[in-house]
Amino acid sequence: MREANVAIAGATGLVGREFIRVLEERRFPMASVRLLASERSEGKIMRVNGCDLKVERLTEDSFKGIDIALFSTGSSVSRRFSPIAAQCGVVVDNSKAFRMDDTVPLVVPEVNAEDIRNHRGIIAVPNCSTIQLVVALNPIHRVNPIKRVIVDTYQAVSGAGGKGVRELEQQIEAVLAGKEPESGTFPHQIAFNVLPEVDVLLDNGYYNEEWKLIQETRKIMHAPELAISATAVRVPVYVGHSEAVHMELTHPMSPEEVREVLSRAPGVRVVDDPSSSVYPLALDAAGTDDVYVGRIRKDVSHPLGIAMWVVADNVRKGAALNAVQIAELLVCDHKG
Amino acid sequence: MREANVAIAGATGLVGREFIRVLEERRFPMASVRLLASERSEGKIMRVNGCDLKVERLTEDSFKGIDIALFSTGSSVSRRFSPIAAQCGVVVDNSKAFRMDDTVPLVVPEVNAEDIRNHRGIIAVPNCSTIQLVVALNPIHRVNPIKRVIVDTYQAVSGAGGKGVRELEQQIEAVLAGKEPESGTFPHQIAFNVLPEVDVLLDNGYYNEEWKLIQETRKIMHAPELAISATAVRVPVYVGHSEAVHMELTHPMSPEEVREVLSRAPGVRVVDDPSSSVYPLALDAAGTDDVYVGRIRKDVSHPLGIAMWVVADNVRKGAALNAVQIAELLVCDHKG
Repeated sequence: MREANVAIAGATGLVGREFIRVLEERRFPMASVRLLASERSEGKIMRVNGCDLKVERLTEDSFKGIDIALFSTGSSVSRRFSPIAAQCGVVVDNSKAFRMDDTVPLVVPEVNAEDIRNHRGIIAVPNCSTIQLVVALNPIHRVNPIKRVIVDTYQAVSGAGGKGVRELEQQIEAVLAGKEPESGTFPHQIAFNVLPEVDVLLDNGYYNEEWKLIQETRKIMHAPELAISATAVRVPVYVGHSEAVHMELTHPMSPEEVREVLSRAPGVRVVDDPSSSVYPLALDAAGTDDVYVGRIRKDVSHPLGIAMWVVADNVRKGAALNAVQIAELLVCDHKG
Repeated sequence: MREANVAIAGATGLVGREFIRVLEERRFPMASVRLLASERSEGKIMRVNGCDLKVERLTEDSFKGIDIALFSTGSSVSRRFSPIAAQCGVVVDNSKAFRMDDTVPLVVPEVNAEDIRNHRGIIAVPNCSTIQLVVALNPIHRVNPIKRVIVDTYQAVSGAGGKGVRELEQQIEAVLAGKEPESGTFPHQIAFNVLPEVDVLLDNGYYNEEWKLIQETRKIMHAPELAISATAVRVPVYVGHSEAVHMELTHPMSPEEVREVLSRAPGVRVVDDPSSSVYPLALDAAGTDDVYVGRIRKDVSHPLGIAMWVVADNVRKGAALNAVQIAELLVCDHKG
């Protein structure tokens, strides 16, 4: 395949629009592109590579002639339409619907690109907070197996899509106007607050965002024994997830060695000069492709401990970019 | 001492004003009160227990006839004037000046009230993020020694005083007006961002806020061997520090048992029904006295692990209330 016929399901959403931007920026070889969304957005006009395209309603017939379908819909929509799309081409699915399915590869190209070859029509994109974590952990894990990880997150409202962004905007305006802010997307006021609840609650007391981080990290890194725990927290930031990471290694390793390994790692940018207040920041990461790592230091609570701070654009590397990178691998694969 | 002659050094600051509110609310037995501040605030009128009082300039003569001096000044001011005040009465100092001094008790009344008896004129109030942590950890540690703690914080801007609060307010207004927000108190924009820098950098790669959490926790809990690490992060919240805590115990203990122990602990309120989105929140804690604990669950990364979420009003329990509680113990002590 030299040029692919591409469909974008969920094209009008926050991640869908980022799909288009990333495809354009990276000059993804497209023969054609079809924009799909729910009935509500049918007929909307969106610009792709300088052409105005009409958004079509997502139906079972939407995928005829398609080589690659990028999905960024809710998981129930994905569960229904991905298998249909997979009969025409390859689905790269951003939802949680198939991530932990043993027959579906869960791929972060910098970490496990080779897993793509095992696909049966669907390739899953991990959760945003997982992607940036494994991009930063894997290079270390390859040279010094990580035994245990604790990660606490500081997650942007755009992780909940456009409605999360609008809710923070509206709440900020309400607070400034002396009014009572209304919550709907988030369970409580997110403006000037932090919420230790992301996604649904599981029986073990973890919210699913935390559990996804745990399970997906093990699957992507092929590290089923990795001990890992997380607290996932929503913060009043528009774009950019930050993560405080504490890990235990197998062998001694200095912060300098970790910095050295990460500075050579694909997709990673080391930003680490705390004496000049230089470290990764959500505001700086927003709109960029890299996973930023800084505050690399000994974790003084463990003889083999390393602590660090990991930040990335959750909409971009955490979703759209990672999906397009997978699509690029598919195009290259077929070229060979 | 039935009624104390009280001085408040730094009376016009964020914590100083909270001192007055807490003294009033708790009907602290005051024979007199003297409000002290820098030259800039001299002559200001502040209301205490229904009386208008004039703020005096803090000098070496300010403490004559004083029984208790509550300090909430910068540490350099405290270092200069606390020893002078301690020749007249007992100093309860909220700064970091004397906290790690072996001859100065560092006290959280719910944890180590008995240490007060060893004072030589100065008693130190711990750092705000430490206070709420030890109030939550100590009851568990007493029944099941904690071997290791990892804590990542979500700290309110009021931890940097009134100027921190004003900087967030001004930055929010600037962003809404489409202007470039200015930073001065914080090293980068805090509005819609999170900053992994609190206090000054140490040689080991930790910022001092993290190191204070580590050192002070060991001192207050009389646990010099406790392994502990932290990442301290400033978030765009006005009041209320939140903490994600992961600990390793000595013996197995279920989340239910931890909940049970904490529900009987002084100064702790267990708020833990995540299935109904009930957990501690900074917005709810603001203006209240308790340390709130929730999200109590097994830490799945360790066989003896427990994870939890700890929130308190950093200006109140994290500073003013804790100091007034110490003053109350002093008054009771002298009564006996």
